[in-house]
Amino acid sequence: MDMIKIILPDGSEKEYKKGISAGEIAREISEGLYRKALGALVNGELYDLTRPIEKDSTVKIITDKDPEAPVIFRHTIAHIMAQAVVRLYGKDVKLAIGPVIENGFYYDFDLEEKISEDDLPKIEAEMKKIIKENLPIERFVISKEEAKELFKDQPYKLELLEDIEDDTVTYYKQGEFFDLCRGPHLPSTGKIKHIKLLSVSGAYWRGNEKNKMLQRIYGTAFAKKDQLDEYLKMLEEAKKRDHRKIGPKLDLFMFENELAPAMPFFLPRGAKVINELLEFSRELHKKYGYEEVITPLIMNIQLWHQSGHWDHYKENMYFTEKDDIQYAVKPMNCPGHILIYKSKVYSYRDLPIRLSEFGKVHRYERSGVVHGLFRVRSFTQDDAHIYCTKDQIEDEIIKVMDFTNELYSAFGFEYEADLSTMPEDHMGDEKTWEVATEALRKALERSGISYKINEGDGAFYGPKIDFHIKDSIGRKWQCATIQLDFQMPERFDIHYVDNNNELQRPVMIHRAIYGSIERFFGILIENFAGAFPTWLSPEQVAVIPVSDKYVDAAKELYEKLDAEGLRVKLDSSNATVGYKIRNAQMLKIPYMIVIGEKELETKKYNVRTREGNTVEDLELEDFIKTVKEEIKNRSLKLSY
Amino acid sequence: MDMIKIILPDGSEKEYKKGISAGEIAREISEGLYRKALGALVNGELYDLTRPIEKDSTVKIITDKDPEAPVIFRHTIAHIMAQAVVRLYGKDVKLAIGPVIENGFYYDFDLEEKISEDDLPKIEAEMKKIIKENLPIERFVISKEEAKELFKDQPYKLELLEDIEDDTVTYYKQGEFFDLCRGPHLPSTGKIKHIKLLSVSGAYWRGNEKNKMLQRIYGTAFAKKDQLDEYLKMLEEAKKRDHRKIGPKLDLFMFENELAPAMPFFLPRGAKVINELLEFSRELHKKYGYEEVITPLIMNIQLWHQSGHWDHYKENMYFTEKDDIQYAVKPMNCPGHILIYKSKVYSYRDLPIRLSEFGKVHRYERSGVVHGLFRVRSFTQDDAHIYCTKDQIEDEIIKVMDFTNELYSAFGFEYEADLSTMPEDHMGDEKTWEVATEALRKALERSGISYKINEGDGAFYGPKIDFHIKDSIGRKWQCATIQLDFQMPERFDIHYVDNNNELQRPVMIHRAIYGSIERFFGILIENFAGAFPTWLSPEQVAVIPVSDKYVDAAKELYEKLDAEGLRVKLDSSNATVGYKIRNAQMLKIPYMIVIGEKELETKKYNVRTREGNTVEDLELEDFIKTVKEEIKNRSLKLSY
Repeated sequence: MDMIKIILPDGSEKEYKKGISAGEIAREISEGLYRKALGALVNGELYDLTRPIEKDSTVKIITDKDPEAPVIFRHTIAHIMAQAVVRLYGKDVKLAIGPVIENGFYYDFDLEEKISEDDLPKIEAEMKKIIKENLPIERFVISKEEAKELFKDQPYKLELLEDIEDDTVTYYKQGEFFDLCRGPHLPSTGKIKHIKLLSVSGAYWRGNEKNKMLQRIYGTAFAKKDQLDEYLKMLEEAKKRDHRKIGPKLDLFMFENELAPAMPFFLPRGAKVINELLEFSRELHKKYGYEEVITPLIMNIQLWHQSGHWDHYKENMYFTEKDDIQYAVKPMNCPGHILIYKSKVYSYRDLPIRLSEFGKVHRYERSGVVHGLFRVRSFTQDDAHIYCTKDQIEDEIIKVMDFTNELYSAFGFEYEADLSTMPEDHMGDEKTWEVATEALRKALERSGISYKINEGDGAFYGPKIDFHIKDSIGRKWQCATIQLDFQMPERFDIHYVDNNNELQRPVMIHRAIYGSIERFFGILIENFAGAFPTWLSPEQVAVIPVSDKYVDAAKELYEKLDAEGLRVKLDSSNATVGYKIRNAQMLKIPYMIVIGEKELETKKYNVRTREGNTVEDLELEDFIKTVKEEIKNRSLKLSY
Repeated sequence: MDMIKIILPDGSEKEYKKGISAGEIAREISEGLYRKALGALVNGELYDLTRPIEKDSTVKIITDKDPEAPVIFRHTIAHIMAQAVVRLYGKDVKLAIGPVIENGFYYDFDLEEKISEDDLPKIEAEMKKIIKENLPIERFVISKEEAKELFKDQPYKLELLEDIEDDTVTYYKQGEFFDLCRGPHLPSTGKIKHIKLLSVSGAYWRGNEKNKMLQRIYGTAFAKKDQLDEYLKMLEEAKKRDHRKIGPKLDLFMFENELAPAMPFFLPRGAKVINELLEFSRELHKKYGYEEVITPLIMNIQLWHQSGHWDHYKENMYFTEKDDIQYAVKPMNCPGHILIYKSKVYSYRDLPIRLSEFGKVHRYERSGVVHGLFRVRSFTQDDAHIYCTKDQIEDEIIKVMDFTNELYSAFGFEYEADLSTMPEDHMGDEKTWEVATEALRKALERSGISYKINEGDGAFYGPKIDFHIKDSIGRKWQCATIQLDFQMPERFDIHYVDNNNELQRPVMIHRAIYGSIERFFGILIENFAGAFPTWLSPEQVAVIPVSDKYVDAAKELYEKLDAEGLRVKLDSSNATVGYKIRNAQMLKIPYMIVIGEKELETKKYNVRTREGNTVEDLELEDFIKTVKEEIKNRSLKLSY
């Protein structure tokens, strides 16, 4: 009998007969482990518990404690949902795809009947029945020809089969249901515990607007009930914080879907926040030694040929023509900055050169993927390019990380980093990659930031670090990016003169910290649920006269505060005080001062906060000093 | 004999026989007047002194004191120049056009031989000969057919004749030379006194790049020698101040003529000035009650059809297409602001609404007319739109004028205004025009600004006021504009609710103060010859160590000044002190501090200014306080 060697996570080695499954190995270790086992990592690849292992391997049994667990059971729950839908809506349901996504899964169906959110409980009930039936889930390897016969009534599966290059494919079967699938899956439907269907929406087959619109059902599943509850609570909270709702309600921004699709209009209150964000960024750029430039938005396509954007990015670019010359609206700022760099001769003593720009870029995105301020077609990058020698890379990266840290901390964001290394298809020699990647790694180590490595996930022109911030309800957002680039300096043939008076190629570092200021603004709206820290608030103080009689006094107070540089809203409308306070609270104005007879006499003021606190009898001077200090420190908490 | 009645400027009336000339009238008044006479205004139209007057008329004799004088003698000098060119280069010279322009004239010639600036003295000499010959200048009225025969060897004149709709045309003759011309002219070539040919350049026939390139000679002429001298001195000074030369030399901006024609790149030093200009403007916008917004750059052409820009401005717009929908890159900000206004319902109590934007606009201009920063294809307007009731127009205009005054005064600019009134082709009823124009006029009167009226020169949608600033060498630049608009509120059907709860149409005021920030920057460069006031200077203080030994001390000083918010340049290169000082002076850095042994010991500093003054033994504290005060006040003069 053929034997294979299995290495377990604790380093122990054992021989098994060839074709043994991870489930059998788990059971041999302990019955308890077997009961908890959901799947296995075999030589780094996810396996079903039942799939035969054919060669010497390292094997790790996956339980619900492992980060890979959700992928396995959400994959299975997608099949269970499809099975339930077919049971309820009949054999004519055409199945498209049902992948696992972050925090859940979906499945796309083509059926005549329209599924609404009201139907979800019914489908969920059927799914629970299937779970109770505890159907074994079996994996089959068959030839493509056999698969075509098996799925002859499923046109989408047939189309998927056309694109598969292997000769064999796998399908999975549970009870009467079977689906073309790479797996892995749980060993039986009964292993699923905490599920929730979330929503229904339309989705084009393969995301292409020219294809048929299918019905997509989103759902999620967790190993533990409290995880599901927490996630559902987060979703509920996220829904309340949805910037697409809060934004217009707080007069921050608007969209005109027909006239300027996916290009935001910032209303006065929103523009104030944007300007504060720019101002803060500008302050830090100065501190970290950047020099701001301004480059044109529309440039000859020659430039975009030279930069490589034409080859790699054409579909996302806007073009325009004059005098029979084709121009492109810039999707990135790098080529413009390169032209500025190229306009001078630099010595090694001049490096690093750090050019920054609040660059307005335009990138076409399909209407199916645009989303509020999170994904738009025009946005402002806090973009910069650093030109330096290879020796300077590590220090420069450290400086960028310090910058990032200072900026994110001001908003209270924790963050993590990914280091993406050399992909198979890369440009430049491996030695340079090694040095550069090592510089990034060292910088990450020195900075003490928690990071993981994405092997082979770098850009073809160099390795990169991406930062993910965590917002106040636990969601992660990719924002900052630092990318090393060996390619563009080549393409544009840029130089510096070294200490031997010889021409050398500088390294170029692309970096953005907010990323897109529009997107970051959206994240902030949701993070703070619209209640921005005082320094970012469109209005910082609301002055509210008790009645018409006190409008003059209120105006005087308004002017005093305004002269101190505070952003003040004077509400001299003839609404009731209660209404005015509620309105200021709705607008999330941090502080409210109501003026009546008492205030006029004593010159002392009661200050209410949007959080409902009231501080009585404040001297105006003290209030001003306190709030100005709070703003200056960009404090995250109100002072009262 | 037919008699006609002539009214003179002093109101006196007299009868003359029909066909009398202004020259004869002048001679009758006094021999002195006749000698000084250059032409006449007959019923507001410019006449030659010899042209017969055929009906009752008001007549004003023009002498060199009148503003119309230069038009007459520059017209004649253009003919004299053409005559000289034909004499020198032969009968094959083809004559195109030779108009009077501001401060001079030009004439376009088509001839094989290339005329260079070296040839100008020779042509000027020949012109002086013609002046000395004192040839009488005669006017002839002939039929178009006769004219075609007369100019049969002059193809450009024949082309011009094709476009003339009248049956008769006039031509003028002096000696052997004659030219198709509407006049008026001096009575003889001898009346010309102070002339100067200035330059030669290429110019397309009719300004169209598809036509033949002709040779254009520019010249000027003045009635008095000191006027000519002053003008030539100003030209000399203007040449030295040319922002297209100073800009790149001072690292303020650059152009990439092939990759981004007529779209400036602002280098770090220039971007600092631009940011200061924006900051100052933002401060004033806040003070005058504006609310900043940010609108998309690319919008559906539907919007531009609705706004009327498609009909009136298409040729100057950039277009782009996605998803089979045509979009335009905005040439103006008004439609975007209208959409914001329209997104809410306003009560009369909310008005006026003042929306401002530093709007980046793109306007295609032919490559023949673009000019440095003065005329570009992409620029940033300090644009705003005020939505108000008719009753509010006057007060709003006054506020805009106060704003304008405050802004211009900060740069030391004096200015004048033009009020342009209802054109023949206008929109809206005359009553509304009358009220609006009267509001503008009253506002001008109240403000005490010197202004003149341009009858019938308003936009078709409303009357307007343009402001012309006068720079330090006497040139005038149109910058600010205030335009009333009755049309766009109609086209976009915008409203407010009046105190009877009825919908009313607001008036829209378009206004920009800098106009184009890029252009204003260009004007400032020339106005200050690159030596900006300290608040605008890219660097405010240069710190210069005497030698390597004092670099650390210089760095410390640099950091102290930097921490105070001053823009400081530390020159720690290993050049000589003399070289570093010259370099700082070349960059027009207002203040220089040299650090050596003495400064290190005494902690007192000698401050040199770019103007060459030196103040000795300053306490650092005093220097910082003084310069910060100077910057805060946006002072035009250096403190030392």
